[in-house]
Amino acid sequence: MRYLTAGESHGPQLTVIVEGLPSQLSFAKEKIDWQLKRRQKGYGRGRRMQIESDQVEILSGVRFGKTTGAPVTLVIENKDWTHWQKIMDPYSSPEEAEKRRIPRPRPGHADLNGAIKYGHHDMRDVLERSSARETAARVAAGAVARLILEECGIQLASHVVRIGEIEAERVELPLADLIQQAEDSPVRCLDKEAAKRMMELIDQAKKEGDSLGGIVEVIVEGVPIGLGSHVHWDRKLDARIAQAVVSINAFKGVEFGIGFEAAKRKGSKVHDEIMWSKERGFYRATNRLGGFEGGMTTGEAIVVRGVMKPIPTLYKPLNSVDIDTKETFAASIERSDSCAVPAASVVAENVVAWEVACALLEKFPADTADELVEQVKQYRERTLRF
Amino acid sequence: MRYLTAGESHGPQLTVIVEGLPSQLSFAKEKIDWQLKRRQKGYGRGRRMQIESDQVEILSGVRFGKTTGAPVTLVIENKDWTHWQKIMDPYSSPEEAEKRRIPRPRPGHADLNGAIKYGHHDMRDVLERSSARETAARVAAGAVARLILEECGIQLASHVVRIGEIEAERVELPLADLIQQAEDSPVRCLDKEAAKRMMELIDQAKKEGDSLGGIVEVIVEGVPIGLGSHVHWDRKLDARIAQAVVSINAFKGVEFGIGFEAAKRKGSKVHDEIMWSKERGFYRATNRLGGFEGGMTTGEAIVVRGVMKPIPTLYKPLNSVDIDTKETFAASIERSDSCAVPAASVVAENVVAWEVACALLEKFPADTADELVEQVKQYRERTLRF
Amino acid sequence: MRYLTAGESHGPQLTVIVEGLPSQLSFAKEKIDWQLKRRQKGYGRGRRMQIESDQVEILSGVRFGKTTGAPVTLVIENKDWTHWQKIMDPYSSPEEAEKRRIPRPRPGHADLNGAIKYGHHDMRDVLERSSARETAARVAAGAVARLILEECGIQLASHVVRIGEIEAERVELPLADLIQQAEDSPVRCLDKEAAKRMMELIDQAKKEGDSLGGIVEVIVEGVPIGLGSHVHWDRKLDARIAQAVVSINAFKGVEFGIGFEAAKRKGSKVHDEIMWSKERGFYRATNRLGGFEGGMTTGEAIVVRGVMKPIPTLYKPLNSVDIDTKETFAASIERSDSCAVPAASVVAENVVAWEVACALLEKFPADTADELVEQVKQYRERTLRF
Amino acid sequence: MRYLTAGESHGPQLTVIVEGLPSQLSFAKEKIDWQLKRRQKGYGRGRRMQIESDQVEILSGVRFGKTTGAPVTLVIENKDWTHWQKIMDPYSSPEEAEKRRIPRPRPGHADLNGAIKYGHHDMRDVLERSSARETAARVAAGAVARLILEECGIQLASHVVRIGEIEAERVELPLADLIQQAEDSPVRCLDKEAAKRMMELIDQAKKEGDSLGGIVEVIVEGVPIGLGSHVHWDRKLDARIAQAVVSINAFKGVEFGIGFEAAKRKGSKVHDEIMWSKERGFYRATNRLGGFEGGMTTGEAIVVRGVMKPIPTLYKPLNSVDIDTKETFAASIERSDSCAVPAASVVAENVVAWEVACALLEKFPADTADELVEQVKQYRERTLRF
Repeated sequence: MRYLTAGESHGPQLTVIVEGLPSQLSFAKEKIDWQLKRRQKGYGRGRRMQIESDQVEILSGVRFGKTTGAPVTLVIENKDWTHWQKIMDPYSSPEEAEKRRIPRPRPGHADLNGAIKYGHHDMRDVLERSSARETAARVAAGAVARLILEECGIQLASHVVRIGEIEAERVELPLADLIQQAEDSPVRCLDKEAAKRMMELIDQAKKEGDSLGGIVEVIVEGVPIGLGSHVHWDRKLDARIAQAVVSINAFKGVEFGIGFEAAKRKGSKVHDEIMWSKERGFYRATNRLGGFEGGMTTGEAIVVRGVMKPIPTLYKPLNSVDIDTKETFAASIERSDSCAVPAASVVAENVVAWEVACALLEKFPADTADELVEQVKQYRERTLRF
Repeated sequence: MRYLTAGESHGPQLTVIVEGLPSQLSFAKEKIDWQLKRRQKGYGRGRRMQIESDQVEILSGVRFGKTTGAPVTLVIENKDWTHWQKIMDPYSSPEEAEKRRIPRPRPGHADLNGAIKYGHHDMRDVLERSSARETAARVAAGAVARLILEECGIQLASHVVRIGEIEAERVELPLADLIQQAEDSPVRCLDKEAAKRMMELIDQAKKEGDSLGGIVEVIVEGVPIGLGSHVHWDRKLDARIAQAVVSINAFKGVEFGIGFEAAKRKGSKVHDEIMWSKERGFYRATNRLGGFEGGMTTGEAIVVRGVMKPIPTLYKPLNSVDIDTKETFAASIERSDSCAVPAASVVAENVVAWEVACALLEKFPADTADELVEQVKQYRERTLRF
Repeated sequence: MRYLTAGESHGPQLTVIVEGLPSQLSFAKEKIDWQLKRRQKGYGRGRRMQIESDQVEILSGVRFGKTTGAPVTLVIENKDWTHWQKIMDPYSSPEEAEKRRIPRPRPGHADLNGAIKYGHHDMRDVLERSSARETAARVAAGAVARLILEECGIQLASHVVRIGEIEAERVELPLADLIQQAEDSPVRCLDKEAAKRMMELIDQAKKEGDSLGGIVEVIVEGVPIGLGSHVHWDRKLDARIAQAVVSINAFKGVEFGIGFEAAKRKGSKVHDEIMWSKERGFYRATNRLGGFEGGMTTGEAIVVRGVMKPIPTLYKPLNSVDIDTKETFAASIERSDSCAVPAASVVAENVVAWEVACALLEKFPADTADELVEQVKQYRERTLRF
Repeated sequence: MRYLTAGESHGPQLTVIVEGLPSQLSFAKEKIDWQLKRRQKGYGRGRRMQIESDQVEILSGVRFGKTTGAPVTLVIENKDWTHWQKIMDPYSSPEEAEKRRIPRPRPGHADLNGAIKYGHHDMRDVLERSSARETAARVAAGAVARLILEECGIQLASHVVRIGEIEAERVELPLADLIQQAEDSPVRCLDKEAAKRMMELIDQAKKEGDSLGGIVEVIVEGVPIGLGSHVHWDRKLDARIAQAVVSINAFKGVEFGIGFEAAKRKGSKVHDEIMWSKERGFYRATNRLGGFEGGMTTGEAIVVRGVMKPIPTLYKPLNSVDIDTKETFAASIERSDSCAVPAASVVAENVVAWEVACALLEKFPADTADELVEQVKQYRERTLRF
């Protein structure tokens, strides 16, 4: 399975082509739209989120509600495109180009290094694509992957474990409850007390013209044992998930299970003892390793956390340099989001979904969804009897 | 550039084929052997490290000290192979197989999930390949990549920033000094006081039959601006490095620049202000983002940290289950390394080198080393004048 | 450089995403539309070609007439979509599905094996994607690749060398003339006498309800020496071109230079003698090998021919079997094209363009079109002085 | 599944790493050696074939006669390495380099374009890798793929259909007989009369110092319906096979089923009528399309032919130019093979095997051979009942 995304933040649309899907997969548009909607929620988002109200249009690969096996095209319109046409049209005049040019790179964005790499003197030629708007396209692709996972009894959830200096208390919950409670919280935080303080912190940051980052956690349950492989480094699934998570805009790190905490503990407090019962087959007493050993799933829940840096703050000016004049200026253009961590948690969930679904399709025959479901079922039975 | 590795921990050899190298590259065998040697050092390693004393044999792709452009084959012998021949020979008898069979999976290793995935009833069929012995092959590949980087003025270093509960004080040093001091320290730690305590901790863990993990940091200096790309998520170089680092045996997380710390700070304390001078061109006042914006290098040093879990401890028994009898047993087979973090720092350095060299060759495709060097030089000049 | 295509023959549109383009490339929409138009011309085409009159809409990656380096989205509308909406809508009712179902596979198409593979009982779920309509998307991608080639002085042409039993006489022409004369011929044939007889043959086939195949030749001039590589089999450029050509709908073979004729000749009549002059550097006395030695370009023109089978004829019935009843029926549904060879020659030209452009970008640094052009120029100079 | 090969013609060895094999696959070394042996046979081969007598050494991935799922390393020694050590050693002296330098490119080889591309002034740096010796490594990889195919009831054969001007009469034979008769013929030709004349022609060419090419045909029986896919051009299996065949040294074309002949026939004489019986399910009345429709297997035998140019003849001199002096010389160094077509037929067989096995594993991903066999069996049953 593979996909390409295209589209600028203020262009007419985002486009995603997903290739390699099984046929006969129930393709519920509302489930994809639901993921897009979740991405737009969250305390601390600005005006644009209201403008967006994203939905996919399906332009290929689906008939009578099911995939045909052909590539699926999904389009997400940019609702405010009409206001940007002159600036973003592929063939506006050079005078227009000069007039609208952005010669001032913002710290914390791809503006400057992107401009140098691609020889741009208009930062817009970089920022339109490096914008986090693109994550809508990745969420759409991930939402398609989820349709596959769901059929196989694999479920995903995510929640926010930190915003700024506020850390949530660890709460143990059945997945369904966790999903519900995260959805109910404006900051996707399971610890209600912390959630309240997070929102206060966001309000304060907004007032100060500053921004906040945080940590999100994705959980995947119902994963068969042995996705990924230890036999060659580039087939390790945790490492692929690491790539997917770090590639989300503004993410600066990723960890599995107890993650960085593992450095502090002794070995006897890190590894998960192996248990067995007739009903469950092999399982683990704990899940400190976050569902992976040797780059392969253990059958325990995948637990992965990613850290998002604060959105480059622009109210509170940071110094930068004009590329024409080489003079220093204070980069303080206004922006609307002061904290996008709750949304990022949804993005993370969906990019992880993509990787898990790919690993699933690498392990199980699946020209049709029925074959896939049947194979996974049979494998689970074999696993139980191992 | 691509490579495949093969070989078991107790088989005759590790083999690496590196394909896609420029020709005319000075291929200094001693530099590759030096990286292999660095991987074997470090306080806390066991007997095997002495046995190994790895060296590469070059079996293709090099003539008169230079690459020809053809694939390079590197072989690293396993010195104790003679003692393992019966067990590891491709065609030993089934009786031998049965006699030597390992039916008991160790927690924290790929033994159990690997066995279930691949249908093995002898855990050796998994552990021989999932063993960290394979990292020698990856170091060899990375050492080849370094030959390329060096020609282009790109240098790597690594050091240990934590072992168990001991964290090193941050030290600012010129890279050459940092390299020297890390090399001089038995635990590759720049903070001498912490280093001493780390060694004590290792001694203690050894005594207790326990093991220790830690955190390593890799630094890459002299990187041109704009390696990687923001235009498609899978071309972001930080994300590829994340995959490479997490795929190292026992690594559970990765972070760039201030990494997870970024979640706690406000935006105004995270992003790096942009500066310019005639001599340096554009540069940054700080390097909190670890050399990346938008998945592309900024020209500042790449700073990446990875966390290694403690080696699955086997003196201090963890419970597991025999796959034949389904009975619980205490997994307490002896092993020799109580802490492999210093060695892991060298591995991390070299897998990062591979990714950076690949990104370099994607930006400056080069059939000959001379062309590459010239291209990079010209680009650096253009960059300076941007 | 990579691309994905999506879209059904009677769906709303074809979509192409092209990823990995240099920035600053002049993106002339009219040149892409021109390739699409060329694909629709040709004696022997039916009604649909008039309906189509394809044009691309550019939905990302281009601003002020130049690429930004971001993925380019191209859309080609299906003009008759309105008549097909009920049948092709992603969410039409199951009753509609049943009513419109096609249970009868046509010989010579992917209908039956596609249906078995993907578990379809409606052949439309296969044929909509396996239709040669998709080649419009590939032509669009190839036309983008040509923009790159043109900047580097690489030019492509194609012509028809056989239709049915009529073979054209070999004509030696300068490329510009060849291009013009092929364009002027309704069957893209340089031999006017043969062209006349080809058209008569097409008329006759049409009358008989039969169809005709043929052979097309693509020529690429101005190719630098050394695209592709001999060092690993999957990097040989001729072999990649072979894949591209055989993957065109209805193509059953491919050959380079004198091709299959090489089997008949002695070695002394096959290989191309090496010459040198101060003005031209190294060159060849002949070009029997079609521009390749060892899977790399020699600097002589690439000459590649592909054979297209006759479009599965449906006036003149072939037997098939209904998948519901298992009864034999005569597959004789009407269709409009009796010969698509001239169009296929344009398709071949453009898929070859794609492969050559990819090989070019694998050899030369090219984040921007300027760098690419400069590098190719410098390399040509070095080549001349070799 | 993927593999890399490495090694020079006169270096110490060829090395192949095959990654992505299912575990539990019976790994019969003698079957791989048998394919290598077949490659060395054939009327018209020179002295080297006796020197070679290739065998693989298995250095990883196999225990107790079965694959473990880990990468398999195969090594084929170059028997005459001892005589070449000074010339081929990675670290011989520069004086040695200068003394042994080959400044004269041979027409028909990669010598000149390879030297220009990679900046070599010693042609040996090219020819050692571009030599057809490398096909031994590809045969080894293909032979591994065959182990998979055999378990699934897929069988391959090949024979020679033309050498020089002698064309064999088409013979219809059951596959087992075809295999036997091809093996018994010194030129792998089923038409005994033609075979005799082929050998006479070879003798004559040898006497004249000239060389001969020819056409080989590969047949694959027992292929499940639906390998490859019509949904995206780069997944078409015939096109992938085309790449594999054209990438064999000296191959200049490839065709499927009636191939280039399809250009001459009317549509009604090209396509294969669809039949059905309870015992066989769907099948075809004929197999003119060589087992493919829409880039997917139809269940009929895959029939693919490749054309090999005559080995660049060197007794009968062709003109070339010395790269130092730029003077013309007659390239007439002696060589031993006057016709390598029978051997090439074996190479073709094995590279096709690789592609088919990859397509099989893409349709039926399989961590263990048992799962694969079971999946294929179940699918065949479903196919029968479709």
